[in-house]
Amino acid sequence: MTTTSAATTAWRTRADATSQQLDDATLELVDAWWRAANYLSVGQIYLLDNPLLRRPLSRDDVKPRLLGHWGTTPGLTFLYAHMNRAIAERELSAMYVTGPGHGGPGLVASTYLEGTYTETYPHITQDEEGLQRLFKQFSFPGGIPSHVAPETPGSIHEGGELGYALSHAYGAAFDNPDLLVLAVVGDGEAETGPLATSWHSNKFVNPKRDGVVLPVLHLNGYKIANPTVLARIPEEELADLMRGYGHKPHFFTGGFDGEDPAVFHRRFAELLDTVLDEIAEIKTRAEETPEDELERPLWPMIVLRSPKGWTGPKEIDGKRTENSWRSHQVPLASARDTDEHLHDLETWLKSYRADELFDESGRLLPEIASVAPTGHLRMSANPHTNGGLVLRDLRLPDWRDFAVDVQTPGEPITEATRVLGSYLREVVRLNPENFRIFGPDETASNRLQDVYDVTDKQWNAEYLPTDVDDHLARAGRVMEMLSEHQCQGWLEGYLLTGRHGLMSSYEAFIHIVDSMFNQHAKWLKVTDDIAWRQPIASLNYLLSSHVWRQDHNGFSHQDPGFIDHVVNKKADIIRVYLPPDTNTLLSTWDHVLRTKQYVNVVVAGKQPAPDFLNVDEAIKHCARGLGIWDWAGTEVEGEEPDVVLACAGDVPTLEALAAADLLRKNVPDLKVRFVNVVDLMRLQDEKEHPHGLSDRSFDTIFTTDKPIIFAYHGYPWLIHRLTYRRNGHGNLHVRGFKEEGTTTTPFDMVMRNDLDRYHLVMDVIDRVPGLGQRYGRLKQKMIDARLEARMYAYEHGTDIPVVADWVWPDVGETATEQGGPSATLTTGGDNE
Amino acid sequence: MTTTSAATTAWRTRADATSQQLDDATLELVDAWWRAANYLSVGQIYLLDNPLLRRPLSRDDVKPRLLGHWGTTPGLTFLYAHMNRAIAERELSAMYVTGPGHGGPGLVASTYLEGTYTETYPHITQDEEGLQRLFKQFSFPGGIPSHVAPETPGSIHEGGELGYALSHAYGAAFDNPDLLVLAVVGDGEAETGPLATSWHSNKFVNPKRDGVVLPVLHLNGYKIANPTVLARIPEEELADLMRGYGHKPHFFTGGFDGEDPAVFHRRFAELLDTVLDEIAEIKTRAEETPEDELERPLWPMIVLRSPKGWTGPKEIDGKRTENSWRSHQVPLASARDTDEHLHDLETWLKSYRADELFDESGRLLPEIASVAPTGHLRMSANPHTNGGLVLRDLRLPDWRDFAVDVQTPGEPITEATRVLGSYLREVVRLNPENFRIFGPDETASNRLQDVYDVTDKQWNAEYLPTDVDDHLARAGRVMEMLSEHQCQGWLEGYLLTGRHGLMSSYEAFIHIVDSMFNQHAKWLKVTDDIAWRQPIASLNYLLSSHVWRQDHNGFSHQDPGFIDHVVNKKADIIRVYLPPDTNTLLSTWDHVLRTKQYVNVVVAGKQPAPDFLNVDEAIKHCARGLGIWDWAGTEVEGEEPDVVLACAGDVPTLEALAAADLLRKNVPDLKVRFVNVVDLMRLQDEKEHPHGLSDRSFDTIFTTDKPIIFAYHGYPWLIHRLTYRRNGHGNLHVRGFKEEGTTTTPFDMVMRNDLDRYHLVMDVIDRVPGLGQRYGRLKQKMIDARLEARMYAYEHGTDIPVVADWVWPDVGETATEQGGPSATLTTGGDNE
Repeated sequence: MTTTSAATTAWRTRADATSQQLDDATLELVDAWWRAANYLSVGQIYLLDNPLLRRPLSRDDVKPRLLGHWGTTPGLTFLYAHMNRAIAERELSAMYVTGPGHGGPGLVASTYLEGTYTETYPHITQDEEGLQRLFKQFSFPGGIPSHVAPETPGSIHEGGELGYALSHAYGAAFDNPDLLVLAVVGDGEAETGPLATSWHSNKFVNPKRDGVVLPVLHLNGYKIANPTVLARIPEEELADLMRGYGHKPHFFTGGFDGEDPAVFHRRFAELLDTVLDEIAEIKTRAEETPEDELERPLWPMIVLRSPKGWTGPKEIDGKRTENSWRSHQVPLASARDTDEHLHDLETWLKSYRADELFDESGRLLPEIASVAPTGHLRMSANPHTNGGLVLRDLRLPDWRDFAVDVQTPGEPITEATRVLGSYLREVVRLNPENFRIFGPDETASNRLQDVYDVTDKQWNAEYLPTDVDDHLARAGRVMEMLSEHQCQGWLEGYLLTGRHGLMSSYEAFIHIVDSMFNQHAKWLKVTDDIAWRQPIASLNYLLSSHVWRQDHNGFSHQDPGFIDHVVNKKADIIRVYLPPDTNTLLSTWDHVLRTKQYVNVVVAGKQPAPDFLNVDEAIKHCARGLGIWDWAGTEVEGEEPDVVLACAGDVPTLEALAAADLLRKNVPDLKVRFVNVVDLMRLQDEKEHPHGLSDRSFDTIFTTDKPIIFAYHGYPWLIHRLTYRRNGHGNLHVRGFKEEGTTTTPFDMVMRNDLDRYHLVMDVIDRVPGLGQRYGRLKQKMIDARLEARMYAYEHGTDIPVVADWVWPDVGETATEQGGPSATLTTGGDNE
Repeated sequence: MTTTSAATTAWRTRADATSQQLDDATLELVDAWWRAANYLSVGQIYLLDNPLLRRPLSRDDVKPRLLGHWGTTPGLTFLYAHMNRAIAERELSAMYVTGPGHGGPGLVASTYLEGTYTETYPHITQDEEGLQRLFKQFSFPGGIPSHVAPETPGSIHEGGELGYALSHAYGAAFDNPDLLVLAVVGDGEAETGPLATSWHSNKFVNPKRDGVVLPVLHLNGYKIANPTVLARIPEEELADLMRGYGHKPHFFTGGFDGEDPAVFHRRFAELLDTVLDEIAEIKTRAEETPEDELERPLWPMIVLRSPKGWTGPKEIDGKRTENSWRSHQVPLASARDTDEHLHDLETWLKSYRADELFDESGRLLPEIASVAPTGHLRMSANPHTNGGLVLRDLRLPDWRDFAVDVQTPGEPITEATRVLGSYLREVVRLNPENFRIFGPDETASNRLQDVYDVTDKQWNAEYLPTDVDDHLARAGRVMEMLSEHQCQGWLEGYLLTGRHGLMSSYEAFIHIVDSMFNQHAKWLKVTDDIAWRQPIASLNYLLSSHVWRQDHNGFSHQDPGFIDHVVNKKADIIRVYLPPDTNTLLSTWDHVLRTKQYVNVVVAGKQPAPDFLNVDEAIKHCARGLGIWDWAGTEVEGEEPDVVLACAGDVPTLEALAAADLLRKNVPDLKVRFVNVVDLMRLQDEKEHPHGLSDRSFDTIFTTDKPIIFAYHGYPWLIHRLTYRRNGHGNLHVRGFKEEGTTTTPFDMVMRNDLDRYHLVMDVIDRVPGLGQRYGRLKQKMIDARLEARMYAYEHGTDIPVVADWVWPDVGETATEQGGPSATLTTGGDNE
């Protein structure tokens, strides 16, 4: 099952699809289907029992705690019912993205009516008993969430946090040319920033190679306690806004002032046919147009203005409820407590005339069911909505073909992410239809530009006939818009529908999508426990232009805290990698691109930096996740080390190595163990994280009683937090980023944060028993070396050569045996 | 100095302000001023010395590391120059918000030309020596940042992270009816979500009582490596977009194809006059209109299309540079390395004809300076931009007047935030012009609705003549839009210009503004060290609808990680409070509303919950920040406790008390110390945080050797992280939120996270030496009680009465003496 049967027949106008008239009988069935969905929605919110009202409603039939959101629900079911009619006629491959995800009852009801729900959850049968279970389980302990959650068939978008409906929808549409994604945007959600910019996605979608997003802006007028902005501007202004966003708006207002359902159903069905015909014409025209002659079409969208709480109680206790914010959640909140509200609830439920909708057993009447599509044409059963079903593994090149040749640690000097770019170029080449790179205008800035040898940035806004439109094309694998929200949302939608990708970002600004990461991580966590949800590809971050190298920028661009944010989420889901050099970066990506159901965070610099590990060493180091670098330390086989010098992150690794160099030359009798950590979660206890080292292994590497000086890329807390249960934790001293940034030369930056080589040496002198009194002069020289380095930077604007030109010395295999006392301070340089 | 001298003379049309013609001579001065600003900008980016080119430019005059951003700069200085002319003529009180903050050189240059820079930094003199210092310090170690940072006079907006220019501008305008805020929005920034929705701010600004924001969308066409979306849609579409946002757009395209400066200066000056006249007319009309007849005007905005890198090199190495992304940062990056680029740089610098701009000493010629305003009319010297200057302390009511009457711990049951609302009502009443409440549609949901007794939600979109427009008014102290970004940005702008406020949000969704918080915290951290920046009011968060009570919602609404995010920032800046009940919540707010230069995070529930501390106790408890609750524990004076039961957060406190109750009744010989923490930072070491307890005090309270069972509101890591240096840390066992949420009854939620009373009792049995074997039956009863509670919830949808109805028993003052063996398990209930 890798695609839908409808794929080749999509995009017909109604006239091409059917000779049937849009007759009243069909519209009556649409209305019946809608009433059924609304009935089931109300039932889910209120009823514990008596699902078909076969006996008078009693207080005990009502749930003791009434939870859920009625207001948005009937609009959602209205769209579902009408889409079903159109899908069945046109054999469209379609899916439904529910921006107002708290309208969960409406989507659960719809998928139940389609039969998908029972197929997915066999105990929710299509009969009275099943209805009772369906009702009870909603927003109930041990039951299902109130949102369009992962548990809901057909959902790729929970809609719990608002703002991402359109981004997700476009992400789903990319590379699915036959797919129609209905994206309902609530007018509350429309006020959020991410949603407000996501309308511009239409400048990035390719009309030929990508699918279609049909946005429906659902104006039901009210949020929790306020009117919505877009419902309270003149219609012409709203039309301007939608045109300004590049859409052709179609306005529909229905259901007000007692409008006859037969009238509004016909009006909406005709509107939907018009819109779907426009889409079919655009798609057909695009299919017939050569790639280089494509232009951005004006995609239609619908503004659906309907009463909030449509078909619900008009008034409660004398206050307007339908068409007001009062219907946002549970309008008859005291239905279990007062006879009047109980009666009102019964009247409301009966208004849907369930006896005309369900047979004696409680099953939807077949003629009503017939207005909806079957099989994979059901939106809730579209395989794209269970992305793991259609996921194909990436074809990956052998990363070793892109590796840098490291003969001796410290050479060559390369830009790690640039080499990664050459590897990704091949990934793009080998996977032309299911792999994309997303980022906010930073793909080249983060040095991945080699991918442009084989692809371009997809861009469907205007072109200028100049050389400045660099690597832009109507179709391309790189997606760039200056909105982290948009990029993340697109990528999530792309992954959730069974494809692969990565997001590259400046490290500091990935916090912009903290909350989106949260929601995706929660989605993954929940789907891990839902058997029918097939695993999807991991969400992979490349964080570059990181905290330690913000040369053009300042303090505002310095924040390594995304890692801290990430490790709060479920350990099964998250992975954090800090490869110290190019080959370890390549090996890491070779790994993460093969994984499923994770969020992988990879932090790596883009600046020229020395390489340390050759291919074999990188493979082993990444497989272990951390390890002792023999060549960097001065241990003696069979003897305990005096100190553990540990590091994680490329800049900290460099400083730790420079410190090791200084120690080797200036404290020759010191036995230093040098440890590098690439997989951060190895530090955690194996009971806390699947990658966690056993205590025994941790103790072997870090010792239980020796000082551990740890140079870390981010906020130092995190290392304490990850290791607080370890035996050696009391001996741990961590240096990291301290919110003391802002300088513009690399070494002055590490000095400002006390993460520099000189501080690391001082830490060793301070903490290794017996060193302090012997090496007081060395400590003072370290202080002086820092002062010299700072004075030089302030004077010249660049780093002092002894630091800037430092390279790891060629100590040879027998270095530890050669060490001897050093009369003068050797701070590095040309390996004299 | 509490206001500007121009305040009363603002909003005149040009015809009213001056009888002078807009003559060529004036425009030539504007051009000269612009050239001077551009010259100084280029100088800052490139020159180490030879600031006036009084000798041939040599390689050594060029900085070794060229850092900064040229592309956006000339457009920013162009606006500055033209605004200056208009401000001087009209005596406008104006400020300049620089969305593209990386155009720092342009703003520094402008403030230097105005004289403000030298007044602020006397060593940067207005002569050749000062120019050399000005140039060298830019983006240089020990110098100034490359952005429009706090160091820049006149800045309230660094613009390092893009997206918040308009929100900040509107925040500055609220309650400053005489202030004009020029807000430049880069076309890169315009792609971000927060910016995309912030255009809608015009529906919230009151034309009579608030100031004016004049947005300038600066289309210079390119980002780092891409064209911008808004520069690549048809102009009519962009006009639609701006009209759709509720603005009247004025388009200006200038500087292309060799247009004569005299021509484009005249065209722009006339356009600016037109726009400022329109603003004056709107303001005048509003001033003359009764409040209830006000309507939302169509505020003008400007679309300024100018070449990126305007006036810079047209081509470099044969590639188009001006009007391309290639001029984004440093166009002649190898000026120090190649003669050709050095020559190009010299030619470029000389094109500004500095000898016509500066006198022999290096000072701007007086006639050029005369085109700009003086004193407080200078945008860089407007007192609003140094908010602490105009800050007035809040008039605060006595919070004790709103306190709940607690005679005995556990009574009454109140909704803490609702009582806080009554206190805030008085704060609003007493401070009608400098205090606002911001939140995304959640002020009432978070139970602060009492404020509506004295104010309304400010709303200047359309009204409907119905009762559903609840507490909306043209002017009001509550600002609600469903965008956390917008609310946070408004509040920041309001605070930065010297006012007070708070932001209320659902706890989970405050992560949406993680990165905005970061930037504001960095701003505060930096301004703490800038003597001329006066302290501003703290940024206060009320996080309610918190992780433990998401009854209508599910897992997507459960995230307590904002606290973790916050504590990564500089300790001097951040404060976190978890008041356990109503009076402590009031006392906390009484405190935080008096503070300056902090970010205060207060987490508090809105659901009915028992109160424990009376006024006096609350004052002491909050002043201490944490304390032993004698009445809850079973300690014996003079004896060591057996265990410390600690808690932070309202729900954890309730569970810990219930556990203490169970222990009191079932393990009568156990000496339990009960500790509650309200100020989380007390846990940290005093060397790490100013609120940190000394080790001695910590040891006295938490002991060094007794088990500490800690029930915590958020992710349990944080408590370990804050206490990892404490002596007793090895004895600490923390229970908190574990990413295992989703249930809809309160107790089932705590059970799912193992934070429940039964687990706490089990922890005590497990960890207090000697208890395990004696109380095996009690432990099993705890397990059984959990099973019963869960079964009940799954069956009934509500919590089991023994838990739901549990109240703290009236143990009396001598409780600890009365304890005796209890034959059967007592799980609480009616204090039998």
